[in-house]
Amino acid sequence: MSAAVKDATRKATVTTPSDREIRIERVFDAPRDRVWQAFTDPKLVAQWWGRGNKLVIERLEVEKGGHWRFVEHGPEGVHGFEGRYREVTPTTRLVHTFEWDGMPAHVIIETVTFEDAGPGRTKVVNVSLFHTTEERDGMLQSGMEGGLNESYAALDRLLATMG
Amino acid sequence: MSAAVKDATRKATVTTPSDREIRIERVFDAPRDRVWQAFTDPKLVAQWWGRGNKLVIERLEVEKGGHWRFVEHGPEGVHGFEGRYREVTPTTRLVHTFEWDGMPAHVIIETVTFEDAGPGRTKVVNVSLFHTTEERDGMLQSGMEGGLNESYAALDRLLATMG
Repeated sequence: MSAAVKDATRKATVTTPSDREIRIERVFDAPRDRVWQAFTDPKLVAQWWGRGNKLVIERLEVEKGGHWRFVEHGPEGVHGFEGRYREVTPTTRLVHTFEWDGMPAHVIIETVTFEDAGPGRTKVVNVSLFHTTEERDGMLQSGMEGGLNESYAALDRLLATMG
Repeated sequence: MSAAVKDATRKATVTTPSDREIRIERVFDAPRDRVWQAFTDPKLVAQWWGRGNKLVIERLEVEKGGHWRFVEHGPEGVHGFEGRYREVTPTTRLVHTFEWDGMPAHVIIETVTFEDAGPGRTKVVNVSLFHTTEERDGMLQSGMEGGLNESYAALDRLLATMG
């Protein structure tokens, strides 16, 4: 089985470590610095974050206190997302807020860690902390997991071209 | 004792209804629509929110999804604050996020309600929900209560001139 076929079937592992959290784990076939670049360089983020939909990166200031704002233009409409960086530790850790325009001021804290996972592989762990359990459950029921796997499949394809 | 002297000594009531919340209650000698105006009109907000310091209102979009950003120029330096509105119910209820530039992406949800409290008086209740107990305790220990009472004293003075 080729690497491309394996990637197409790879799913993220989604768990709920507490009643206000969602934890997502996924391994990518690329070294840590390359995966970091794909999460922080606007030209690269635009190629995978929107699951193949057009994504306009209005702001992406990857530094403590910096803001980000992306607008996805999909078949079901236009969706804006935004937030701000709390912590940026290059190639290792990002902490930022996440907010969808459709539910303004419902704010998630996302902590993303990048770990070596064997030669040429990187494990990305994303822990989302919500203000309430209801908001967490709403996200779980929103079809988030399907969208996430589509984005990560697009990221697999991008990483394969970065070698 | 004159009304002015009474106002000068009036303190907000601060309680902690849960381990991630702070509740602040304060009565003002003005009708509800006037107090609402003082919380939502940029020209009026600028006169009390900064406790007498110069306050630049960079954004104040009082509608669901709208953003706000204030910059306070005080003797100890320049401090930016910002957030976004979740809910706006005129003269009754505001829900918005609150973030200080000094701790970016540490986000509080503030729910402010305005209630009639007898003829010509209004009770304002502000409940702040934090992501963690540590953040809540950090706010309690920050000197918040003193600053709050200074702001509310400035608001008393403003309301008295709006009659």
